Amino acid sequence: MLVMFMLQPVKGTRDFVGEEAVMLQFLIDVIRRTFERYGFTPLETPAFEYLELLTKKGGKDIEKEIYSFKDKSGRELGLRFDLTVPMARVVASKKLKKPFKRYQIGKVWRYDQPQAARWREFMQADIDIVGSSSPLADLECLKPVVDIFKELGLDFFIKINNRKILESVVRSFGIEDITTAFRIIDKQDKIGWDEVKKELKKNFPDKDIDALIDTIKKNDLSVLLLDEEGEQGLSELKELLDLGKIVGIDDFLRIDMSLVRGLEYYTGNVFEIMAGLDVSVGGGGRYDNLTEVLGGEKEPATGISIGVYRLLKVLQDKKFVPPKKKKVYVAPIGETRAEALQILNKLRANNITSEIDVMNRSLSKQLEATDADIVVIVGPKDLSNKQVTIRDMKTGKEKKAAIDKIIEEVMKA
Amino acid sequence: MLVMFMLQPVKGTRDFVGEEAVMLQFLIDVIRRTFERYGFTPLETPAFEYLELLTKKGGKDIEKEIYSFKDKSGRELGLRFDLTVPMARVVASKKLKKPFKRYQIGKVWRYDQPQAARWREFMQADIDIVGSSSPLADLECLKPVVDIFKELGLDFFIKINNRKILESVVRSFGIEDITTAFRIIDKQDKIGWDEVKKELKKNFPDKDIDALIDTIKKNDLSVLLLDEEGEQGLSELKELLDLGKIVGIDDFLRIDMSLVRGLEYYTGNVFEIMAGLDVSVGGGGRYDNLTEVLGGEKEPATGISIGVYRLLKVLQDKKFVPPKKKKVYVAPIGETRAEALQILNKLRANNITSEIDVMNRSLSKQLEATDADIVVIVGPKDLSNKQVTIRDMKTGKEKKAAIDKIIEEVMKA
Repeated sequence: MLVMFMLQPVKGTRDFVGEEAVMLQFLIDVIRRTFERYGFTPLETPAFEYLELLTKKGGKDIEKEIYSFKDKSGRELGLRFDLTVPMARVVASKKLKKPFKRYQIGKVWRYDQPQAARWREFMQADIDIVGSSSPLADLECLKPVVDIFKELGLDFFIKINNRKILESVVRSFGIEDITTAFRIIDKQDKIGWDEVKKELKKNFPDKDIDALIDTIKKNDLSVLLLDEEGEQGLSELKELLDLGKIVGIDDFLRIDMSLVRGLEYYTGNVFEIMAGLDVSVGGGGRYDNLTEVLGGEKEPATGISIGVYRLLKVLQDKKFVPPKKKKVYVAPIGETRAEALQILNKLRANNITSEIDVMNRSLSKQLEATDADIVVIVGPKDLSNKQVTIRDMKTGKEKKAAIDKIIEEVMKA
Repeated sequence: MLVMFMLQPVKGTRDFVGEEAVMLQFLIDVIRRTFERYGFTPLETPAFEYLELLTKKGGKDIEKEIYSFKDKSGRELGLRFDLTVPMARVVASKKLKKPFKRYQIGKVWRYDQPQAARWREFMQADIDIVGSSSPLADLECLKPVVDIFKELGLDFFIKINNRKILESVVRSFGIEDITTAFRIIDKQDKIGWDEVKKELKKNFPDKDIDALIDTIKKNDLSVLLLDEEGEQGLSELKELLDLGKIVGIDDFLRIDMSLVRGLEYYTGNVFEIMAGLDVSVGGGGRYDNLTEVLGGEKEPATGISIGVYRLLKVLQDKKFVPPKKKKVYVAPIGETRAEALQILNKLRANNITSEIDVMNRSLSKQLEATDADIVVIVGPKDLSNKQVTIRDMKTGKEKKAAIDKIIEEVMKA
């Protein structure tokens, strides 16, 4: 016998069973249907990639988190840590028609410290538009996300910023190592502003860090003195806000000058989706250099990613119940299994979710065990009258129905 | 710049882009919808498991094929090689209501020699019923598979056998090491009967291998002299055939006494789905000991697995075209982007797949590039009359439509 912990999923990973699995599937369906409505088409890429590809542009923090291994021929591989790098690889390697609008919903893996709502295996639902540098492409990624969160009835908002603005601000304080500064500022959510200040001061001892942080925290775009690149970022952000107003999502957008988004590949507008007040359930932004860095042609690109497990948890905390399909249970009494199977056949041929006992149980045990909405009882006496008994499991009411009217009768019930 | 091979998916794995990805998604949808109609509910398990769990019952051949690695804490892990072992783990670790009927559609990994229609990463679509030892449970797994293949319009049949019959036959020739004998017989598809004979003779030099193979190849259940266990297997197989007749799938079932199914965990009826004459696209069978071997209670179980990539290839070879949803493209002329975006909003709110140009292209370029069925042209002159122009891209015909009737007009077009 195996030790019991081997019967558990590996630390940081999860099983989804029963109601929870149904809910996950429901959520994936809502997301996918919305993405498709916006003209995104699917992409499917492998779970693992060459390690060198994965470490090319994710940044140092992500590199430590990659599940890496050698295959039996000695290839150095790694499980993907997001869906953006594999997508950029596909774009860099193929001549695809632009704009390339794809969605991908799949698992990614990061060897992170597991904590509440943070897993080592989790699921992302991504959309990206490659080939357009217009803020309209940013909008076309934000809008479906707003649709999804509205459809799910959630309280949410989306933080937006433009990296060029923050870069310009950081530079205006004499800091040239933007990567390091951003990596520290990005930790603000986790460690708070005081710690961010400390770390910045340690890294940039001769700069006026207090004033820098004050400027960021003030979060007022109108008072900034920006260089040309900063002005460019500001105009991109403003265009996105204007477009948001046109399509009616401006109420959900909030400027947050401190927003960096962890991964190093972002270059312009960035987003973070917040459920309730403070739960991040996804984000994204513009990354105009990624395909070039990977060895392809330079392509402007933008995208957004929903953390599916995170979102699921938000829904579960709200006791969200997904809609349930009507289910029928066919219960033979005595030697009527053949007739019951034929009725079952008919129900399924008419797209009605239906089941039959496979445990050889008595009728009362069957009625006790089933979670169906309707039970079709197939007894010898009814059969001799070419009928069955239909029982509504909610009310307990029963009625007779002719076998050749079974579909209509079940639909009505 | 990365060397170009790094822009390719790792050997034995695949990308699905554009039409091919749409087709894959369509296929998954058909499979899932059918499984759900039969009352199966989803299960989701992690991509990797403890290596010891995976090597517990798959058999020696599979052990060599596992992608194994250590995580950063030194845990010995492996990518799952099928969906059955993880499912059995879940069953063994939890008190689940029986019968437990689950489906799972997901990727699995085997470090196999890649060849035509054989990949190192591939997708399986599984259904299993745990808790029932009845051949009716076998039927409830076979029937949805028949539905799927019929819905896809494929030529197919399902080989069926019962391991107990073959075991009894092998034993009747004095062979006690069933595992070794089965492993050799299982290779018949790949290496042919002559090689199977040679290998059997090498392993069992004092047995009448020629007569054994003749008996198997004759494939006639009525002439076998079976021991008690063999008779039990025969009766299970016959009951399954009888049930198949009742639900009208008997035409698709063919007895094949040589059928073993590779994995060692099978114990009773076994199945193999064949597309055309000789392409295996899945299979399964009964495995009554697996949960016990993994450390849980003994639970009778049966299931079937469809090789999704294999099936996709069969469809592609047949030039199968999945149904396409109507798609609308909204094209602004001049300064009408705001109005175009509002029309787009309305279309999407009404569940119509629709897009807008994000590349700042001229109208003629947009019309050239789009794969939409209908284009809604939003021009300043039309707008002043509160209308737009609707162009049918197949016929090239155009008509005017009032903006407040846009949904009806697009639906009609």
